[in-house]
Amino acid sequence: MKTRAAVAFEAKKPLEIVELDLEGPRPGEVLVEIMATGICHTDAYTLDGFDSEGLFPSVLGHEGAGIVREVGPGVTSVKPGDHVIPLYTPECRQCKSCLSGKTNLCTAIRTTQGKGLMPDGTTRFSYKGQPIFHYMGCSTFSNFTVLPEIAVAKIREDAPFNSACYVGCGVTTGVGAVVNTAKVQVGDTIVVFGLGGIGLNVLQGARLAGASKIIGVDINADREDWGRRFGMTEFINGKGKDRATVIAEILSLTDGGADYTFDCTGNTEVMRTALEACHRGWGTSIVIGVAEAGKEISTRPFQLVTGRNWRGTAFGGAKGRTDVPKIVDWYMNGKIEIDPMITHLLSLEEINKGFELMHSGESIRSVVVY
Amino acid sequence: MKTRAAVAFEAKKPLEIVELDLEGPRPGEVLVEIMATGICHTDAYTLDGFDSEGLFPSVLGHEGAGIVREVGPGVTSVKPGDHVIPLYTPECRQCKSCLSGKTNLCTAIRTTQGKGLMPDGTTRFSYKGQPIFHYMGCSTFSNFTVLPEIAVAKIREDAPFNSACYVGCGVTTGVGAVVNTAKVQVGDTIVVFGLGGIGLNVLQGARLAGASKIIGVDINADREDWGRRFGMTEFINGKGKDRATVIAEILSLTDGGADYTFDCTGNTEVMRTALEACHRGWGTSIVIGVAEAGKEISTRPFQLVTGRNWRGTAFGGAKGRTDVPKIVDWYMNGKIEIDPMITHLLSLEEINKGFELMHSGESIRSVVVY
Repeated sequence: MKTRAAVAFEAKKPLEIVELDLEGPRPGEVLVEIMATGICHTDAYTLDGFDSEGLFPSVLGHEGAGIVREVGPGVTSVKPGDHVIPLYTPECRQCKSCLSGKTNLCTAIRTTQGKGLMPDGTTRFSYKGQPIFHYMGCSTFSNFTVLPEIAVAKIREDAPFNSACYVGCGVTTGVGAVVNTAKVQVGDTIVVFGLGGIGLNVLQGARLAGASKIIGVDINADREDWGRRFGMTEFINGKGKDRATVIAEILSLTDGGADYTFDCTGNTEVMRTALEACHRGWGTSIVIGVAEAGKEISTRPFQLVTGRNWRGTAFGGAKGRTDVPKIVDWYMNGKIEIDPMITHLLSLEEINKGFELMHSGESIRSVVVY
Repeated sequence: MKTRAAVAFEAKKPLEIVELDLEGPRPGEVLVEIMATGICHTDAYTLDGFDSEGLFPSVLGHEGAGIVREVGPGVTSVKPGDHVIPLYTPECRQCKSCLSGKTNLCTAIRTTQGKGLMPDGTTRFSYKGQPIFHYMGCSTFSNFTVLPEIAVAKIREDAPFNSACYVGCGVTTGVGAVVNTAKVQVGDTIVVFGLGGIGLNVLQGARLAGASKIIGVDINADREDWGRRFGMTEFINGKGKDRATVIAEILSLTDGGADYTFDCTGNTEVMRTALEACHRGWGTSIVIGVAEAGKEISTRPFQLVTGRNWRGTAFGGAKGRTDVPKIVDWYMNGKIEIDPMITHLLSLEEINKGFELMHSGESIRSVVVY
């Protein structure tokens, strides 16, 4: 079949809207019509050539929502017509990681996914006879895409695609970091570094969990209003302040340090600040942001010996097929908000504008509607 | 009163055995006759001038066992004749840390303890009219010492002092790191870096907890026999091997990485190896060793984002008055061993020899018997 797609033919170039050939689903695979897709910093990171493992030409995009249109042999968990969210972190429920009950980092198809291929080692996309790589196992910048069955979460049919797609990455990453990874409890104090699309979702996750003090830190003063809208109770403008000053402000606001801090910046210096702003004895800092290749985090081991914990999270610690439908329910039941974060709706033809809006900081989330 | 003590008059000089004046216990304090004390690397670290906050002249020693001889006004939890272990990490049961239930790092007397003083800001030791500082709130290199009531753990009277004293630091630090901090479970895989006095206790803690694979890493081949004696199931000689090699060996032995790793070396490069040898998704590395001043730990944040946890522990996460008596029980009931680790018994006059035996690696633990 044919599908309209925005293709990344090479790094550091705008995406090109073309018609691709798409092969139908093989055993264990499903064909999904993508109805909407968010544009995430990770797409830009790859397109801008920062990901040393980035592959071109490829169809980027990993934050989508759509409808199953066809299933391959052996597929039993979804059927045509089902509404789904593609999962860049699949959930096979069979591998050592899934069975451990201790992580969401399913390893069933990790190797091929990292190579831009389907689990059988081939690609479904091609352009004028040349293969085009998949991306993060999703490739939602295509109107139709093929996904492994274990990489789709079935969601309720009354959830609007334009908002639900954001659950495919940003919402789950932020809310899940609070709920699944940190397991924040009522009365805890938390600090969020970086009030972008992920940080705002950490804020509302903390609000949902009943945190008593929800502190946001950003170097952009405009983000204070955004933060307060999603549960932030205090704002620290970090602009021009050194690490010791920011930490002192946090320690003062939290009676000695936060129970949980979250880095949503990807800046390794900020990750250190986040750790050291934790309460002695039990404070836990969670790295969410993706750092530049080659950058390292550092601290004095004394910080750990005196009881601070340094952790990380991917996809909010969420098991995709199990947890993503729940997060959609939370949205539909008013426990979390998504609509106000979707600042721009674009057509596929306008997708490059979406990247510009993100880079300039003008958008929280731009969503392409097919 | 008078007491015989080994005094550190200045850094980098041998201890001198002298007779000190010791003032009796004030309110909330107890006078303890120390019957035996271990010599620990932390004493040497201070004596050698590596601790920038080290104070002189002082009475070092923090790993003792003895008998309460007198109590000051208001003391209710111990009485003369009780056998006790001094606690460099006290347990007041009243401060924010104690009440949190999340840490053993009681803060009740932290400030004065760090200044080498009793909680009222004075010292009980003096020599020829000059004040002598306390050390880690214990000063067990004195035949008699004064301690805050909250800094003594009452233990059973049939426990021999020569072995029980080791519970005052090394045993609790190692076994406790497994039991209290990591909470190792039956079937877990663990790796211990550094098979000295702490490392051997981590090994036997893991054996006690039912770990399935207990791997020891050391650059001294002689430590293999020691390790096997306390539960080690495999040995890796790290001598001359780079980080990647050691990690690859561990990943191979543990099907992808250990559930828990423990650094007992104080070497920040080893701390990194320990983290990166953890299993993706859930592996936790625990820093026990004390690093040189100014040294920092580093890693790629990717290690955390993919599910490894970096933590630390002090005094094995043990609440002194609550947990230390239990560890003495475990020893008396044969659940853990101590006697084989006490390689040398010395008189107070021989204490400097004890430091030499430790530095040369000849001893696991030297104990001074009064």
